[in-house]
Amino acid sequence: MAAAVPRIALSSGEPAGIGPDICIRLAQTAHAADLVVFADPDLMKARATELGLPLILSGTDEVRTPQAAGCLRIHPVKLRSEVRAGRLDPRNSAYVIEMLEQATDGCLAGRFDALITAPVHKGVINEAGIPFTGHTEFLAARCNSPEPVMLLAAGDLRVALATTHLPLKEVPRAITRAHLEQVLTTLREGLRTRFHITDPQMLVLGLNPHAGEGGHLGTEERDAIGPACEAMRARGLRVVGPVSADTAFSPARLAGMDVVLAMYHDQGLPVLKYAGFGAAVNVTLGLPIVRTSVDHGTALELAGTGRADPGSLEAALQTALHMLQQS
Amino acid sequence: MAAAVPRIALSSGEPAGIGPDICIRLAQTAHAADLVVFADPDLMKARATELGLPLILSGTDEVRTPQAAGCLRIHPVKLRSEVRAGRLDPRNSAYVIEMLEQATDGCLAGRFDALITAPVHKGVINEAGIPFTGHTEFLAARCNSPEPVMLLAAGDLRVALATTHLPLKEVPRAITRAHLEQVLTTLREGLRTRFHITDPQMLVLGLNPHAGEGGHLGTEERDAIGPACEAMRARGLRVVGPVSADTAFSPARLAGMDVVLAMYHDQGLPVLKYAGFGAAVNVTLGLPIVRTSVDHGTALELAGTGRADPGSLEAALQTALHMLQQS
Repeated sequence: MAAAVPRIALSSGEPAGIGPDICIRLAQTAHAADLVVFADPDLMKARATELGLPLILSGTDEVRTPQAAGCLRIHPVKLRSEVRAGRLDPRNSAYVIEMLEQATDGCLAGRFDALITAPVHKGVINEAGIPFTGHTEFLAARCNSPEPVMLLAAGDLRVALATTHLPLKEVPRAITRAHLEQVLTTLREGLRTRFHITDPQMLVLGLNPHAGEGGHLGTEERDAIGPACEAMRARGLRVVGPVSADTAFSPARLAGMDVVLAMYHDQGLPVLKYAGFGAAVNVTLGLPIVRTSVDHGTALELAGTGRADPGSLEAALQTALHMLQQS
Repeated sequence: MAAAVPRIALSSGEPAGIGPDICIRLAQTAHAADLVVFADPDLMKARATELGLPLILSGTDEVRTPQAAGCLRIHPVKLRSEVRAGRLDPRNSAYVIEMLEQATDGCLAGRFDALITAPVHKGVINEAGIPFTGHTEFLAARCNSPEPVMLLAAGDLRVALATTHLPLKEVPRAITRAHLEQVLTTLREGLRTRFHITDPQMLVLGLNPHAGEGGHLGTEERDAIGPACEAMRARGLRVVGPVSADTAFSPARLAGMDVVLAMYHDQGLPVLKYAGFGAAVNVTLGLPIVRTSVDHGTALELAGTGRADPGSLEAALQTALHMLQQS
C-alpha cells in the first residue's frame, strides 16, 4: 500500500543533456507527489538560471509533502567535473552512476516508492571504462533481479521486449524457449501486480520476417518461440503467437491484447514511439521496485536551450503514480 | 511515355486466398486503365458467384479501353487443381508462378505498362518444391536486375529495405558497405525516375539498437553503414545517418526526408504498416518495369467471404498510374 503522498526518486541523468532541464521544467507545476531529484545542487541552480526558470531547492524531510510549483527537494550528489550543457565529459560518468545507485538503493530500502529516470548517455559511461548497456540492465544487477522485462507504453499500446540492448547479431541466440517462458511469466505478473490487469492477453511476435513463414524464413519460431507460447498456453496463460511483426500492429490484431512482446529493440520500439512520441513511458517489470523512465535520449543539442520537452517525464511520473495507486 | 490508356497486368496471386476476391472487388468500379487480370477464368467466375458480385470477363484486345464497372479483361492461365477458398494446395503453386512469369514477361515485352501483384503464399510454393522467397526476389531474377529495392509507401511515409526476406540471423552479414551503396544508388534513381523527386533526401537507419551507440552495441554502423553513407554524401547525394531506428519516425526526424532506408524487414515495416494499414503499397525499384503490390498477405480465412478489403489493391493501382503519369 502506497503512502498518502508517494515519495518519488527522480534521477536527473547525464548532466550535459536535457535531464536537468526536464526535471526543472517538471517542477514548474505542482504534483501530488513528494518529488526528490538526485543531482548536484549547483548544476540544478545554474541550469535553472540558464533556462530563466525559478527553482527553490530543499532537503528531504521526514514529513512527506506534495511538491509545489517552482520547488523541488534534492538529494545531493557531487559532480566530478564542471558541466557545460551539450558537452559530454567521461569524468562525470561516475556521478551519473552514483545517482542511480543511491536512488535505486533508496527505493530498495523503502525510503522512496518509485524511481523515475531521466536519460543517461551510454556511450560516455562506457568511455569512462564503466560497463553499462542500459538502465534496465543496471537495475537488474542492482536489484538482484536477473530477468527484468522492459516495457514501453504509449496510450493504450504496450510493447515489451524479449531482448533489450544487444547487438542485432547476438539476438537470435538469445531467443530460447526457456528465456521466453521466463519473460512471459514476468510480463504477466508485472501486468497483474503493477497494472492490475487480472488475466492479461499477450501477443508474441516472431523473430524472422513473416514469423519465419512456416520455417522457410528461419527456424526460431518453430524451435523456440512457438514451443514457449504453447507451454504458456498449456499453463493457462492467454498467449497468442508467434505472429508476423509487420501486421501485428493493425487494429484487428491488437483488439483485446494487453501487450505485444517483441523479440528485440528495433522490432517493437519504432512503432511504439511513432504511436506515442513525446509521451511514451518506459517501465521495468520484474523488479522489487516501481520504475518508470522517459522514452528518449539525452538530446545534447537541446540542453540549456529551453526547447527540451518534459512531456515524456510528466508521463513517466503519471504512470508511476498510477502504478502506485493500484498496488 | 505511357500510352493514353495504360494497360496494367494484374496477377491474381494465390487462388485459395483473397487475391481473386480483391481483383473482383476492384473491378466493381471503373478505372482509367485497361486492367488485365492473370487468372483462371473458371476460378474468377466461381469466386464472383460466391461473393454475389457481377463479373463480365473478356479477352485482351489490340485496342486499349478503360475498364468499366463490373468488367475485367482476362489473360487465362489454367489451374492445376480445383480450388476451395481458404484451402492451400501445393499443386496450384505452378499456376501461381506461371501467372507471375507471364505477367512479368508481358511487361518486359512492352505489352503492359505496369505489373500489380495480389498476394501469394510463400509457404505453399516452397512446399511444392519451388524455391521462392518473395515477389521482389522473383522479379529480380526474372528481370535480370540483381539488386532491386523494396519500398513501401503509406501516404507521405516511404520506407525502403536494405534486406528483404532473410532470416534475422543472416541480416548482419548482408549489411556491407558495397551493398548499401548499391541500394542507395538504386533508391535514389528510383525516386527520381519513378516518383519524380529531383534530389531525394534519404534517412538511413542503423542496424543495431541506438545505431550501435557509438560502437558499444555493435560495429556495423562504424564498419559498413557509416562509410556507405559518407561515400554517398561525398558523391553529392543527400544522405542522413545512420540514425537510431526507434526515434527515426518522429515528425522532427522525418521532416524533409523523402524516404527512410531500414536495414531489414521488421525494423521498417511494422511502423509503415501501422501508419498506413489497409492502404500501404509495396513498390519495387531498380527493375526495368513499373511494379506495385498490395501490402498484405493471402488472408485465407477471408477468401470467398466478401470481407476482404480491396483498399491496398486500389492504392497499388493508383500508385502505379501515378508512376506512369510521371514517367
